[in-house]
Amino acid sequence: MSRIWNFSAGPAVLPAEVLEQVKDELLDWHGAGCGVMEMSHRGKEFTAVIEAAEADLRELMGIPASYKVLFLQGGATQQFAQLPMNLLPAGDSADYLVTGSWSKKAIKEAQHVAEGIASVRKAGSTEAAGFTRNLDAGDISIDPNAAYLHLCTNETIHGIELDCSRLPQTSVPIVADMSSHILSRPIDVSRYAMIYAGAQKNIGPSGVTLVIVREDLLGKAWKTIPSVMDYAVMAENGSMLNTPPTFAIYVSGLVFQWLKRRGGLVEVEKANKHKAELLYACIDESEGFYVNPVRELDRSRMNVPFMLADAALDAAFLSESKAAGLASLKGHKSVGGMRASIYNAMPTDGVRALVEFMQDFRKRNA
Amino acid sequence: MSRIWNFSAGPAVLPAEVLEQVKDELLDWHGAGCGVMEMSHRGKEFTAVIEAAEADLRELMGIPASYKVLFLQGGATQQFAQLPMNLLPAGDSADYLVTGSWSKKAIKEAQHVAEGIASVRKAGSTEAAGFTRNLDAGDISIDPNAAYLHLCTNETIHGIELDCSRLPQTSVPIVADMSSHILSRPIDVSRYAMIYAGAQKNIGPSGVTLVIVREDLLGKAWKTIPSVMDYAVMAENGSMLNTPPTFAIYVSGLVFQWLKRRGGLVEVEKANKHKAELLYACIDESEGFYVNPVRELDRSRMNVPFMLADAALDAAFLSESKAAGLASLKGHKSVGGMRASIYNAMPTDGVRALVEFMQDFRKRNA
Repeated sequence: MSRIWNFSAGPAVLPAEVLEQVKDELLDWHGAGCGVMEMSHRGKEFTAVIEAAEADLRELMGIPASYKVLFLQGGATQQFAQLPMNLLPAGDSADYLVTGSWSKKAIKEAQHVAEGIASVRKAGSTEAAGFTRNLDAGDISIDPNAAYLHLCTNETIHGIELDCSRLPQTSVPIVADMSSHILSRPIDVSRYAMIYAGAQKNIGPSGVTLVIVREDLLGKAWKTIPSVMDYAVMAENGSMLNTPPTFAIYVSGLVFQWLKRRGGLVEVEKANKHKAELLYACIDESEGFYVNPVRELDRSRMNVPFMLADAALDAAFLSESKAAGLASLKGHKSVGGMRASIYNAMPTDGVRALVEFMQDFRKRNA
Repeated sequence: MSRIWNFSAGPAVLPAEVLEQVKDELLDWHGAGCGVMEMSHRGKEFTAVIEAAEADLRELMGIPASYKVLFLQGGATQQFAQLPMNLLPAGDSADYLVTGSWSKKAIKEAQHVAEGIASVRKAGSTEAAGFTRNLDAGDISIDPNAAYLHLCTNETIHGIELDCSRLPQTSVPIVADMSSHILSRPIDVSRYAMIYAGAQKNIGPSGVTLVIVREDLLGKAWKTIPSVMDYAVMAENGSMLNTPPTFAIYVSGLVFQWLKRRGGLVEVEKANKHKAELLYACIDESEGFYVNPVRELDRSRMNVPFMLADAALDAAFLSESKAAGLASLKGHKSVGGMRASIYNAMPTDGVRALVEFMQDFRKRNA
């Protein structure tokens, strides 16, 4: 078997050692005589799996006991609707920051489901500036009575990241979509009222969605909300009002164990910082051959979009990089150019291979 | 590795040859250099996977071209809410038949989400009779103006099955929850306006939900429905408005291929009929030692609940059957006793092993 260097934005590369373990246990988990996919979610075996996943995640992220951890379905896109249905009481208003495609989708969906029920207000946007940076304090006007302030702390398509040390100063509860950089660095969970993330970047297979929500915010859901969408109901039922996506939760749990073996998020962050520095240095030292348009302070360590100054070379770059074993480098269609997603599971060697290819390609085509 | 005979009601046993293939392809699918879990859902590889899954399912079930096939998330429980949100216009009314725990949950959830919006009406129930049979024609009063008639064609907990040849005679569109017997026998899809099923019994891993819906019924969704819950939106986007549960869809597709290799649903039905006959014969010939309370005509071929006349023997039955490699035979807590779920992936040899154990246990304890 020959594994490629997989720069897909998501579903994305998973740690090979996690996949080897999944493979070993696929038909017989820990002597149970069947795989995790085939087990009742109510049995003691799967109960142990989901409880370990939650405990390991709590340890990795330092999640306070006052927060509930939920394993849900539907992806971040379902959360765009589910969030206001849970945390925005009828007649109230919520604020949204728009810093890229995903936060723009989030506000649009919230406005759609809340129409005629509650207000959803844009509190700042960098769209006019082409989504090349985070909002600065002066660009934001927060309604102090807002039920919450929503933001996306890593814009996967535009490659913009916001660390929790730079969150807006406000007493309004902050809700963050962290889909594409969760678990890539330590954060202070207590700065957030709620965090959510689709799994398919840094957690596990697509089909499971993580919600971390402060307990005191629950119980305000819209009266006719579907039961599976009600955070309070799901919290009461340990994410198991109905059958959860058991296999996806199991694989996610193995990823959490892998992160712990790597030394936790402090060590993981060091590796991610190093990988991002290698790649951005290659871009910045290319004398304009490669360009990343994001303000340096706001550059994502996870998703690195870059353009070739001469777009006529795009096709050659893509076919030659693919032939060199570097896959899924094509940029999102809304942005064009290239994008390298270098999540936790992308080894430094993969980034080195990419940098070497980029330097060589530049030499041959500059 | 030693595989048990797994009688779990769901998540349930999967075909060993499918799991072996998943194992082989886990880190490298068809030479792609990565597994299906790690691929972009927008790439040509996964597009081929989901298109093949749909085509094979259409062939197996004989789904007419006028029906859309959707791979969704949230399980049948989410469909209990999503169905009225899509097919029950505000101010209209829908009819429900209640023949067991699942159809009872379905009406309860529909009433919950439709409160103040539309009417949800019980058109018949066997609850007073302890959910031991299907409704007969005389027990049902259908509102001819109902938007749809909902029923559950296999009640997993009570072990009651309804073949499409015995559907109520009505011009009202019929919507069926087939979670626990889909693909177990040929059916006439055109008798249904919509069919839905959680995957974790006869399709694949939990986390993917199948919806088969007649195209002309789409476009009536409630105005503020979450986008991911709108069948029409999902149909327009080939089930990929957002990232679908890719791995679960892939495994489901392998199960569809396995069913085709077995000769399709006609052959699968023969095997299922034979397995059910073996088990019911063992119960009926036990001179009251084992009892199945369901009317013979309505007995499920998939889920076979049975009680020991002497409930004091339950614990011994469970521990001894487990020691004999027969797992997950404990009945649902709401019913008690035992339940053997004998889905497509349960080999005849597994049922034979169970029957032999039951006969031997009876001999020793009668």
